[in-house]
Amino acid sequence: MLASMKLNEFLQETASSNPVPGGGSIAAMSAATAAALTEMVANLTVGKKKYVEVEEEMKGIAAEASKLREKLLADIDKDADSFNEVMAAFKLPKETEEEIEKRKEAIQEATKKAALVPLEVAQTAFDMMGIIETVVVKGNQNAVTDGAVAAMMARTAVLSALFNTKINLTSIKDEAFVSETTAKVKELEDKATEVEGRILSKVVL
Amino acid sequence: MLASMKLNEFLQETASSNPVPGGGSIAAMSAATAAALTEMVANLTVGKKKYVEVEEEMKGIAAEASKLREKLLADIDKDADSFNEVMAAFKLPKETEEEIEKRKEAIQEATKKAALVPLEVAQTAFDMMGIIETVVVKGNQNAVTDGAVAAMMARTAVLSALFNTKINLTSIKDEAFVSETTAKVKELEDKATEVEGRILSKVVL
Repeated sequence: MLASMKLNEFLQETASSNPVPGGGSIAAMSAATAAALTEMVANLTVGKKKYVEVEEEMKGIAAEASKLREKLLADIDKDADSFNEVMAAFKLPKETEEEIEKRKEAIQEATKKAALVPLEVAQTAFDMMGIIETVVVKGNQNAVTDGAVAAMMARTAVLSALFNTKINLTSIKDEAFVSETTAKVKELEDKATEVEGRILSKVVL
Repeated sequence: MLASMKLNEFLQETASSNPVPGGGSIAAMSAATAAALTEMVANLTVGKKKYVEVEEEMKGIAAEASKLREKLLADIDKDADSFNEVMAAFKLPKETEEEIEKRKEAIQEATKKAALVPLEVAQTAFDMMGIIETVVVKGNQNAVTDGAVAAMMARTAVLSALFNTKINLTSIKDEAFVSETTAKVKELEDKATEVEGRILSKVVL
């Protein structure tokens, strides 16, 4: 599992000429990092007299962010695996007509999956921006910049994941799939940028 | 060293109610990740016939990005250490007039350092956007989205680090230091956002 590598070794592996882990895995890592910071702000809010009114809400957010962190850490592998499946499909035999057809289908199926895995990461990271906004506005204000960093890491996770969806869409022949997915990409891109701006405007230093 | 922790354990430590590692360390991590992706795109360009004209340039970029990655991984600790030094200064004795004065000075000095460490991370991440633009424009176009992700991780590193500079500035009494540093912050904020936009506009999918 990539998430159980040492950080410096994981980045060394990223830096190598091996195409995975690449931008898609980094998108998931960025989202997992946003989850960790959100959890930290919530944890730094719980147990403080000044924030007793939001104590239960912050406990809930810490628990939710913790689950998201685990899920997104697993998505680092999921993205790398989906890339490897595309590569494996390209290596299928292509001697007979039947093999050629089967290989084409396998490439298309694997590429669709490689588009949908980061789309799901993008959606998860975007959905998380709701709890990030809450910790920035209602959480411990001594940690408000940590919430701001979480917002930016989440936005970058969304947009980074969507780049990986888009590059896979360029090889997919199913037009209905492409147009439906493109619409989702566009919507998430616009909303992530907008929500990041809104959260950052609420950071009072 | 934080960078030699396993990624999942590092994020678990981030998520805890311990204030470090926090947003400042994550800014450095984000910048180190951008360096790793830049290095990967350069490495995926070297040795390809189609890109023989940029081979030497890409080798140089890979080497530079590798050094930046190591430096920025070390900055993860540097940021956490500077926060701990502020906390240590607050714990100095404050019984006598002299102790009170010494403690005040120590807090101010430590806080200045805690403002300057992320400012340096921001500057390093911003400077790196030059080689990121080069790999996006001239590097292996099969990896262009990895370059796009690097650009976004670098921009988020710059802005995240600067939030940590700004929050420390709010406690610094040296007005000349504050106004000089604020000017640098504003300049880097504007330029990072602008350069990210320019790089992403050059990503052709």
